[in-house]
Amino acid sequence: MKDSFKSYLDDARSEISNHLSSYCKTKKAETLPAIFKEQGLIDSLEQFALRGKLIRGTLFLLIVESLGVKRDNAILDMACAIELMHSALLIQDDIIDRDKTRRGAKTIFAYHEEEGERLGALDPYHYGISTAIMVGDVAFFFAFDLLTSYQDTKLGALLRFYAHEVYLVCLAESADSLFGQTKREPSREDIYAVYTYKTARYTFSLPFEMASIVGGASDKTRKSLATMGEMIGIIFQLKDDEIGLFGDAEIIGKPVGSDVRENKKTIIRHLLYEAANDSDRKILDSCFGNNDAGVSEVEKVKELYVQYKIGETINAEIESIMNTVWPLYESLEINQSEKLLLKELLEFNLRRTY
Amino acid sequence: MKDSFKSYLDDARSEISNHLSSYCKTKKAETLPAIFKEQGLIDSLEQFALRGKLIRGTLFLLIVESLGVKRDNAILDMACAIELMHSALLIQDDIIDRDKTRRGAKTIFAYHEEEGERLGALDPYHYGISTAIMVGDVAFFFAFDLLTSYQDTKLGALLRFYAHEVYLVCLAESADSLFGQTKREPSREDIYAVYTYKTARYTFSLPFEMASIVGGASDKTRKSLATMGEMIGIIFQLKDDEIGLFGDAEIIGKPVGSDVRENKKTIIRHLLYEAANDSDRKILDSCFGNNDAGVSEVEKVKELYVQYKIGETINAEIESIMNTVWPLYESLEINQSEKLLLKELLEFNLRRTY
Repeated sequence: MKDSFKSYLDDARSEISNHLSSYCKTKKAETLPAIFKEQGLIDSLEQFALRGKLIRGTLFLLIVESLGVKRDNAILDMACAIELMHSALLIQDDIIDRDKTRRGAKTIFAYHEEEGERLGALDPYHYGISTAIMVGDVAFFFAFDLLTSYQDTKLGALLRFYAHEVYLVCLAESADSLFGQTKREPSREDIYAVYTYKTARYTFSLPFEMASIVGGASDKTRKSLATMGEMIGIIFQLKDDEIGLFGDAEIIGKPVGSDVRENKKTIIRHLLYEAANDSDRKILDSCFGNNDAGVSEVEKVKELYVQYKIGETINAEIESIMNTVWPLYESLEINQSEKLLLKELLEFNLRRTY
Repeated sequence: MKDSFKSYLDDARSEISNHLSSYCKTKKAETLPAIFKEQGLIDSLEQFALRGKLIRGTLFLLIVESLGVKRDNAILDMACAIELMHSALLIQDDIIDRDKTRRGAKTIFAYHEEEGERLGALDPYHYGISTAIMVGDVAFFFAFDLLTSYQDTKLGALLRFYAHEVYLVCLAESADSLFGQTKREPSREDIYAVYTYKTARYTFSLPFEMASIVGGASDKTRKSLATMGEMIGIIFQLKDDEIGLFGDAEIIGKPVGSDVRENKKTIIRHLLYEAANDSDRKILDSCFGNNDAGVSEVEKVKELYVQYKIGETINAEIESIMNTVWPLYESLEINQSEKLLLKELLEFNLRRTY
C-alpha cells in the first residue's frame, strides 16, 4: 500500500508505462510485411500514450485494488487498454480541433504531417491526418486486444459496458465539433452533456465502473462510483477550462487562450455571454472565435471573467457538486487504505492548477 | 437450404439488413441528451451500411452454417458486426482517398460536408471529415457491442482474432496512403501486402475464420479457409482493379478511371510500368496521378493495357492462384450443401464484371 495518492500514482504510472512498452515491443516483433513497419505507427502511438499522465489507468488500478483484486497481468492489460483508448480519442480530437501541440509535443497528425513533408507528400496535411486516423485505429484495436486477455465469464459484460461508453464519447465529440464549426449555440444543458460524456464519464466513471465489474463491487458501490465519477469529471473539466485561460503555457503543454481562439463552447464562455451587457458582449464577440486573438484578447476575456464574477459562480457550482460527492464517497464499500487515497484525489481535483 | 449462392445471398442480405436496422432502432431509442441525436449519426451509418452488398456478413453465415451452427440471434449479431466494421473501414478509406461517391451515393464525409454547408459551418469540408471520423468510430463500437452478445467461452479467442485482423487492415490502409501520397514506389511484394491485408483477408479470411472459431472447425479446415480467403481475395482485388478501368460507372457506383487519377498503386499500374518502353512510360506518367485525367487518358491506359497484354498476365496469375485454391476447397470438412454454394462463389469471383 502507498501512503499518498502521489506515490500511488507514481508507482502505477511506472508500472503501466513498462507494461505498455512491453506490449508494443511484442506487437512490433510480429512477423509482418516490411512495408507495414516503415511508417513507425506503433512507435508514434507508444510515445504519445506514454507522454500522458496515465491517470485513467491509475484510477482503474486504484479501484480494482480497493475491491481486493491483485494487480496481475490481465489487470495491467486493462489499465493499458484504457490508456490506449484515451490516446485514440485524443488523436482524433486533435485532428478535429486542428491542435498541433499536446503534452508539450507535436500531436500525432502534426508529427505525420511533418513526416509527409520529409517524404515529399503531395499534401502533407492530408497525409498527416490520414496516418493519424490509422494510428487512432491501431490504438483502439490494441486496447480491444488487451481487454480480451481477461479470461473470465465477466468478459462479455465488461466489454459491453466499455463499448457503450466509448460510443457515447464519440457522440459527444461530434456534438462538440458541431458547436465548434457552426452557429448552433449550445444551451447550458448541451454543454453539460458534452462535459459529461466527452470528459467526465470516460475519465472517471469508465475506469471506476470497469474496476467495479472486475472486482465484483455491489450494485450500490458501482452506482455511487459512476455518479461520483461524472461529478468529479465535471469539476475536472471546469478546472481545465479555467487553467486554459489562466494557466501557464509551459506547464499545461499547450498555448494559453486556445479555447478563446477556437471559440470552444465552455461554461465560462456561456456564463460570460449570459452576464454581459451589450457593449461587453461586443468585446466577447471580438475575442471568441478570433483566430488572431493574442495576449490582449485573452486579457480582455480574463477582465470580464473577473468583472462578472464568473470564478465565483463556478466555485459555487463546484461546491454544490461536492455536496453530493462527499456522501457518495462516504457510502463506498471499498478497502479503507485505497479509500483514503481516493479522498486525496477528490481534494487534489478541487485545487489543481495544471 | 438454398439451391444457389444467389438465393442464399439474397436471403442472407435481407436477414442481415433487418437485423441491423432493428439494432440501430434500439440504439436510437436509448435515452440520451437530445443534442446527441441532432446530427443523425446512426441514420447516416445505417443507410451507408445497408447500401453495401453485405457479402462479408453473408460469407460468415455460409461458413457458420456449413459447420452445423444455427443462425440464431448472436450469429446474426456477428454478421452485422462484420458489416459495420467494414463500413467503418470504408468511411475512413473515403476520407483518406477523398472519394465523394460510393455505392452510387455520397460517401459519409461528403454527406456531412453538405450538411456542414447547410448549417453554415466555418469549414464544411473539415466538419464533414470530423463527423465522418466519429461515424466510423460509432460503427466500430457498435460492432464491438454486437460481438459481445456471444455468450460462450470462445468469446475471448473470437475477439482477439478479430482485433488483430482489423489492426492489420489499418496498417495496410496506412501503407496504401503512403503510396498514394508520396513518391515511395511500392514493389510487387508491397502491393500484394496491401491487397492481402487491406482487402483479401478481411473480406474473406476474417468471416471464414470467425465462422471457424464459432463453428468449432478443425485446425485444418480453418487453415484451409484462411488461405483460400487470402487467395480469392487477391483475385477479387485484381478483378476490382480491372472493373475500375473497364467497368460501367453506372453499375459500379463510382466514376471510371479514379484509380488512374488517384495514381493508385495497383498491380495493373505496376505491370504497365514494368513492361512499357520509354515513350509509353511517358504516356503513363501523363495519365497516372493526373487529377484532370478524363476519358482520353483512361483510353490511353486501356490501349497500353491491351498492347502489353496485361490482361493475359493477370489471367495467368489468377489461374495459378486457382490451382492452389481448388485443392484447398476440396479438402474442406464442411457440409456438402453449403460447400456447393461456396463453389459457386469461387466461380462467380472469377467471372464477375461488377
